[in-house]
This record gives sequence, structure tokens and C-alpha cells, in this order.
Amino acid sequence: MALETLSEVRAHDGVQGVYRHDSTATKTPMEFSVFVPPHAAGEKLPVVWYLSGLTCTHANVTEKGEFREMCAKRGLIFIAPDTSPRGEGVADDSDGAYDFGLGAGFYVNATKTPFAQHYQMRDYIETELPHVIAKNFPSADMSRQSIMGHSMGGHGALTIGLRNPERYRAVSAFAPIVAPTDVPWGQKALSGYLGEDQSAWSEYDACALVRGGARLPDILIDQGTADNFLAEQLKPHLFQKVCDDAGQSLTLRMQDGYDHSYYFISSFMADHLAWHADRLKS
Amino acid sequence: MALETLSEVRAHDGVQGVYRHDSTATKTPMEFSVFVPPHAAGEKLPVVWYLSGLTCTHANVTEKGEFREMCAKRGLIFIAPDTSPRGEGVADDSDGAYDFGLGAGFYVNATKTPFAQHYQMRDYIETELPHVIAKNFPSADMSRQSIMGHSMGGHGALTIGLRNPERYRAVSAFAPIVAPTDVPWGQKALSGYLGEDQSAWSEYDACALVRGGARLPDILIDQGTADNFLAEQLKPHLFQKVCDDAGQSLTLRMQDGYDHSYYFISSFMADHLAWHADRLKS
Repeated sequence: MALETLSEVRAHDGVQGVYRHDSTATKTPMEFSVFVPPHAAGEKLPVVWYLSGLTCTHANVTEKGEFREMCAKRGLIFIAPDTSPRGEGVADDSDGAYDFGLGAGFYVNATKTPFAQHYQMRDYIETELPHVIAKNFPSADMSRQSIMGHSMGGHGALTIGLRNPERYRAVSAFAPIVAPTDVPWGQKALSGYLGEDQSAWSEYDACALVRGGARLPDILIDQGTADNFLAEQLKPHLFQKVCDDAGQSLTLRMQDGYDHSYYFISSFMADHLAWHADRLKS
Repeated sequence: MALETLSEVRAHDGVQGVYRHDSTATKTPMEFSVFVPPHAAGEKLPVVWYLSGLTCTHANVTEKGEFREMCAKRGLIFIAPDTSPRGEGVADDSDGAYDFGLGAGFYVNATKTPFAQHYQMRDYIETELPHVIAKNFPSADMSRQSIMGHSMGGHGALTIGLRNPERYRAVSAFAPIVAPTDVPWGQKALSGYLGEDQSAWSEYDACALVRGGARLPDILIDQGTADNFLAEQLKPHLFQKVCDDAGQSLTLRMQDGYDHSYYFISSFMADHLAWHADRLKS
């Protein structure tokens, strides 16, 4: 679990770093970014996980996410992992498509050959990386974690949060894939990583998890109305209905005129972080 | 002066756009970005110009600058031009170096062959683009403008501001080149664009302009102490001395541990914009 520092830069009075380590879960080197805000010596800070969407690495949100000002203001550590294993020997989509394989791990533990060998992103995010953070960032208070994400990463945040309600005090998402079983991105990924038997998919489907009894105190979702993927891939109304039927509290905000990009995410990032901070510091 | 809209995206309740037009100054197509914050119908808003540094286009600050939140809060239009003419037939550095030619126009009107043909960035920024903005953005109040920039763009902001004190109500810079006559970047650029006769350089040198009597009500500069270019290229103490000697008000803040990157710029962008807004709205 030795950690290699690729860069550490001062930003908003804290330190924005990028790190690499050899992952036992994915059997590849993995990179991630961490922002540690200014804090007193010995102070322990809550940890916010941000899971990125298709095609992204840690770099997209690190450069464009506009999270540091609020993290500095509220004292939040912000962690951005990669979206898949990478490197020579890591299987990719047979056509090199953007929505499966490299950059598209979907936060699952793959069971199908050849993806099972490296695509163990659920274990990586849920188990391995938290240990790496706890060991290498002494200011991280692992008893106060929350999780958010965008698109495929919103799917990751919701499903990981719903499976681990005792660990994450706040769960939110920007334009998440809420019903992968019912949309093309999800069907391609889940069949490709897990096989055609849909009974194996339900633990990776936020709608199915809530229908199956998983609960969180509250969930916040922002969704742009001008998002090109809204009608075919995202379908937040499906999750709204499932939550309404199950009595799961959900705040779904349709944001007029916003698209799927980091211009949308950065517009509401500070708002999400303040919402997380309220729950992490209460 | 017809303007082509390359993209317009909703962000922070305003519109972040990227536009292209055929420049008469540079005789090339030129691209720039404009953020128009939310505002009431018919409201006129002050205009902040941001000039970028070596290698940059409008895209760097547009993606990484973290300016939109404060522009939305204070009602500022934010304009980011390109740093040079581009395209086939535009002369470049003979070795393709990053610090001269493409991406390195230095905000001068070149007089030397072959650069004089297209490298007329002073006229472009001072004269042509303001007319394009006034004509195409009806909410822009061209009687209230200010200017800022980074590195080479800080040099641009200071020299353009000092030459036009009646136009720009606020002038600030991040890690600017303040004494191009005395540092390698400036010597290469000014000799390449203007020739070896240094009498032609002084109107493009902030130190020389202040020594020659140019004055502004106030100037704000932030400079990181961990900036790799500080000692050889930036030398803010030279400008401090010239301003002290001349009685020019200067607030030079040495920011401990910050480098030359957009992590530095974005850390202090909101602060600069608030400083501009105070002067644009008084």
C-alpha cells in the first residue's frame, strides 16, 4: 500500500495532490486525487468521496469541479478516484467504445471473463481505497464519510451509499444513472461485467436497491433539464417513483437549462458540499 | 464583425459562451469566451477582461478559472480572448518554442516580418474586440471595464491598463511579467516582434510605463512564492521599486507556497473579482 506522490500543489490554502499506488483489488496501478483543506495540527476532517462519470479520470473534477473553495471553508477532505483499472493487459470494450471497459468501470466487481481479472472497482472503492486513505492521510476522519458522483459516478455513489448506509452520512448525485437495468448504458455494462442473469445486477441498481429495502436518511440529486442523456439514459423519474413508493426521502431538483457537463456540476458543487458538510458535522 | 456561436452552456445561472469571428486586426479567425451572469432584462453589466498566459487559449481560464460564481454574485461579464492569432499561414517560432509565436502574442502590435502580418494583438484587444463585444452583447456596459491577466496576460493587463487609464477602472494580475525588457521571455518576444531597438519596447513594459509617467488609481498583484518562474522571469520586486519611486499605488501580495498554475489563479480569482467589482460598481 505504498503511496507515490505524483504532485502536490497549494490551492485555496490547502493541498491538492495526485497519488498512485498498486491496487490489490484491480491488480493495476491506480491514481486518485485528494484535496486536504487548511486545518489545525492534529485536527480530524470528514471525507467526501466523488465518483466520476464515463471517460473521466480524477483529473476532470480536480481541474473543473470548483470544489476546493467550499471544502476549505467547511473543512472537508475531497477524494476523486479513477473510473476503471488502466494499463497494458487490462481488457477494454471490443470496439473501443467510451461506455464500457477503460474509463467505464461502473463501480462493480466484474465476474465475466476477461473483465473479472482487473475490473473490481466495487472492492477498490468500498474497501481498498478507504484503507489507503486512512493509512496515508492522518487528518482523515474515517468515521465521518460521505459520497457523491456524476452520471456513472452518481450511479456509483447511490449504489455504494445504499449498500453501506452505516458508513456514509450523506449521499448525493449529479445527473446519476439511477436505473441501469433499464437503460442502454447500464444494460451494456452490467451484462458485460456480470453476465446476462439480471439477478446479479440488482445490487448495482439504485432503483432495485431501494425496492429491495435499502434506505438512507436522505438523498440529494440535481439533474439538468437540457442534459442530452436525460431521456434515454438517466430517467430520474424512475427513481423518484421508487423512492415515493418505498417512503425513501429524495430531493430531486430539476435544474432548468443545465446540461451534462462540468459547467453543470461546478454550478451546484458548492451547494452539494454544504449539504454534505451539514450532515458530516452534525 | 459577424459572430459565430461555437457553444453556449448554462453555468451558475448565467451563460458561458465560446465565439468566433474574423478579425480585421489579426486577419485570422479569432475565438474568445464570454460569461454573461444572470441579470434583469435591460440591465447593463460591467465588463472584466482576462488575458491569458503563454500556451493558453480562452479554454484554460474558462474551464479552470473558477470565476463564474463571483461573476454571478456581483454581476460581472467575464471575457477571455485568445493569446495569439492562429491558423495556416500564421508565422510561429522557428523552433516551435512555447514562448514565442503561436500562443505567445504578448499583446503587442508586431512590426517585424513575418510577424507583423498577423500578430496585432494590441489592436485586437484594445480596439477591435471591445467593439465586437459592444455590438454583440447588449448587456455589456462598455463605460465600466476592468482588466486582469496571468503571467504574459498579466503583462498584457498591466500595459494595456497603464496606457488606457481612462478606460479600465481596475487593473490586477496574477504572477505577471512586469519587466519584459529585463527578463528572457520578454527579451525574446519584444526583439522578435519589434526588433532590437529597445526604444520601441517601452510601451510594452509595465515598469517603463510607470517610470514614464503612466498612472493608475491602484494596482493589485498576487504572486506565489513557489512559482518556478519567479526569480528569472517575473521579478515583481522590480515593479514594486518602480511604483514606490513613482508614487504609484501597488498592492503586491506574495502568496506563500503557491505556484504558477491555475490552482494558484483559481485560489485568488474570487478575491480579484470582488476587488474589481468594488471599483466597477462605485
